[in-house]
Parts: sequence; structure tokens; C-alpha cells
Amino acid sequence: MLDIKDPKEARKIIRENKYTEQTAGTANEYVQGNLCILPSKYADDFSQFCKNNPKPCPLIGKGIKGNPTLPELGEIDIRTDVPQYRIWEKSELIEEPFDIKKYWKEDLVTFILGCSMSFELPLIKAGIELQHITNNTIVPMYQTSIDCVPAGQFSGKLVVSMRPLNANDTIKSIEISSQYPAVHGSPVHLGDPSQIGIKDIMKPEYGDPPRKFKKNEIPVFWACGVTPQSILEKSKPDFCITHAPGKMLITDKLNSELGKKKF
Amino acid sequence: MLDIKDPKEARKIIRENKYTEQTAGTANEYVQGNLCILPSKYADDFSQFCKNNPKPCPLIGKGIKGNPTLPELGEIDIRTDVPQYRIWEKSELIEEPFDIKKYWKEDLVTFILGCSMSFELPLIKAGIELQHITNNTIVPMYQTSIDCVPAGQFSGKLVVSMRPLNANDTIKSIEISSQYPAVHGSPVHLGDPSQIGIKDIMKPEYGDPPRKFKKNEIPVFWACGVTPQSILEKSKPDFCITHAPGKMLITDKLNSELGKKKF
Repeated sequence: MLDIKDPKEARKIIRENKYTEQTAGTANEYVQGNLCILPSKYADDFSQFCKNNPKPCPLIGKGIKGNPTLPELGEIDIRTDVPQYRIWEKSELIEEPFDIKKYWKEDLVTFILGCSMSFELPLIKAGIELQHITNNTIVPMYQTSIDCVPAGQFSGKLVVSMRPLNANDTIKSIEISSQYPAVHGSPVHLGDPSQIGIKDIMKPEYGDPPRKFKKNEIPVFWACGVTPQSILEKSKPDFCITHAPGKMLITDKLNSELGKKKF
Repeated sequence: MLDIKDPKEARKIIRENKYTEQTAGTANEYVQGNLCILPSKYADDFSQFCKNNPKPCPLIGKGIKGNPTLPELGEIDIRTDVPQYRIWEKSELIEEPFDIKKYWKEDLVTFILGCSMSFELPLIKAGIELQHITNNTIVPMYQTSIDCVPAGQFSGKLVVSMRPLNANDTIKSIEISSQYPAVHGSPVHLGDPSQIGIKDIMKPEYGDPPRKFKKNEIPVFWACGVTPQSILEKSKPDFCITHAPGKMLITDKLNSELGKKKF
């Protein structure tokens, strides 16, 4: 882990390719974002898709066409400031470079989407134990039977992340996460997984399986930032750049600034 | 039902003993309160009990010793403005008069506690169906195994009200009711009733049994305004006046004013 509190300092190290690993825990008071860069012909539809589906796709920043900076989120150059990228052509993974200088074009538009890290910290601060953090695993994520609201060529199913919680912590976590609509907001489901098309809670499609449920716990499901990546895989745009899993953009925006603010 | 929108007008009719029935639905944009009047020697302990247990006993108004008015809640004379009262001596029900002029003494202190009606209206406005309202029954209420935090001679178990809800409405109802800490706030439990000492969900201690649960519903439990009455029954003060069940004090305070405000 890059154990640095200041987001500017963390980005400087990442920019120089001196750190290329996961960003979980780095500058953890600050918002980290999911990255999606698309050719401009897709930008309107993808913007609309995010507006239609604010829980899985909470848009916290958008670049100007051809401009790799994101002044609202900090002094950022999106071509260098993410530890590792993924280059996609028609949904096929082409390369996983540490910068995208050679891929940047005048025609590209950058989208930054909020991520659940921003509400996990307040949950932990409220005394709620999150099993994937305790066990140092990746949160389990599942493809559901819930359709996202389509926009142009973008459509597909909602992906959710799951945290096992007792009744008390379930209620507390709903109260807290609903304060953060810019980073997935309140849960989309709780209890019986089959109601949203999940067959086996111990076999997530993404991330690690959860530990065994305690007797008084139920599964609580949040819309997940993997949804847009899963949508892109299906919608097959000619070209697309995302971040490599877990290797996010660190911004200068405080998590606490996101409380009750919609972008 | 007294079908009047204006709380002042409704109180005028009640004051003249022209209406002595339940107040549900009357002036429904306005806060209705549970009443508890105690001799001053109990006032400090009961105040502290309310502070210790804000979910079941949300104090929204308190009178000055010997003074039957409640200027913060409207132009109120507590001796006449409730449709029907209950007079208790050592927890024994003595009388159910329509005014308490002959019982009022210089030594009495009035307490008004918030009630769940204030958050039920926003729930209904958000499209959530509440079975007890649809079926025109009284919300089911249960004695739990959860201890209230005692204060002086006041102690006892938490009473909860229960609404069967699907997962979606459960999440929505938590988001909404948490905005109303002055009227019980967010739920205290959801799911398995036995975890809070409820043996049979179809046999509530107070109110009417719920209708049969639908397959996708779970029970959601809120702290209930019957808790203080149950505590008083146990604590046996020499003298006490409450409202008769369902016959509440109608105040001039808008429900919407209660959002996120603690008193």
C-alpha cells in the first residue's frame, strides 16, 4: 500500500510510475474514482447512461473533449495519474500500460465515477465491521437480474457489491450510505439474494467469496462501480480506456464533501 | 375522523368536547404528540429517561411546572385540548375524562413525545404501502427483550411497532425515517423477530395483528411511543395523566419542520 495521506503527493509518485499497485487505503480521506475514457461519439450516450443509473454510475467528474485535465477534482493529468490502465478495443483487452500518453487523442472524453471506498470509511468509523476489509479480501460482487435504464447503445444488468451485516449495522449502514449519493448511495437490496437473481451468495462473479455468514447476519447489496465496466463489455465501443481493477484515480476532493451532494 | 386540515380549528372543536375520538388523519401535515403529565418530583427523572432513550421517547415539548400551556407547540391548554385523557394512580386507571380541569394542580409538569404518524405520512408519500393503514387497523406493537437505559425510578423494556415491507421499501423507509429523529427516527431492528425477544409476530401485545406476510416481505421494527406508557405502568408513580390511546395532542408544528431537527 502507498501509505501517503496527501492526494497531491500520492499522484506525484503515481505520475512518475514509482507506484503501480492498488490504491485502497492511500489518502483515504479523499475520493477515489473509477475511470472510463471514450471517443466523443459515445460521450452523450454514456453521460445519459450515468444520469439514468446514478446508483451504479455516480458521475463525479467529466473532462472536456481532448483535454486530459480535471480541474474540479484536482491538478490532474489523466494520461499519467492512474497507477495502471486497461486499453480496450471492441471490448477486447489490448494492453495494461502504466500511462496512456501514446493512446491519448483529441477525440477522447474522460468520465470519473464515484466508488464505494468513500462510504466504507464512514461505515468503519461508525463501528461497523466490513468482512472484506477485516480479511483483506476484495468485496464480493454479483451480476444481478436488475436491468439498468438503457441510453443509446449502453444497456445491461446491474452489478452489486455485498456486505454481510447484522440488523443493527444494516440500519446504520443505510442511514450513513444514503448520505453519500455521489458514491452509490443507499443499498439496492437486502436479504434474500434470489430476489435479484443471485443464485449462490458464496460464488460472486467478481471479487472474493465472502466469509461464512454469522447467524444474525443478512446480505446487504449496494450498486457497484463494476456495472459500467460490465456494460462496456457488452456494448462493445470501438475503443475505451479504464483503470486496472483497484488502481483508481486519487482526487483532491474530501469524502466528507460528498455528503448529500449530487453532482 | 375529524376531517379538518387546520390544527387550531381542530383543537378548538376538541377543546369544546365536540370531538372525543381518535385523531389519526386530522390535520395530518401537523405533528401529533403523546401526552404524559407527572408530579414535579418525577419530572427530572422522566426528562432524563427521555434523553437516555430518544428513539422510544422523543421529547418534542415540555411545560413549565404548574403551567398548562405549551407555547412552543401552539396556543395550547393541555387541560382541554386532547380528546380524551387517562388518569392513573399508582398505575391504576382511575378515570377517562374528556378534560382534566379538575385534576390540574400547580405541581404538575407536562411532557409531549413525538409519534410515528409524523414519519408515516412521508413514507406513504414516497409510495410505501403500510398494511395497518390500508386495512384500517392499529399498527401491531410488541414488548421486546431490549432494556431501555434507566433514569431514577424509570426503567423497563422497549416497545416496538412493526411494519411488513419488501427489501426496496425497507431501504427507502430507513432513509426517510432517519430524517425524523424527533419522531422515533430510523428502525431499531429488521428481520428475525426472535433476536429482540418477540416470540410470535402474529400476536402483538398491543394493537392489531398484522395481515399475513407476503413472500418478499420482512418485519421492520421502530421504537414505539407506547414504551413510556409501559414504563409508567411498571414504575408506578403516585399520579399520572396520559392521553387515551390514539387520541393525541394536535400541535401547530409541521411534520416537515421535524426533519433532521433534534429537540
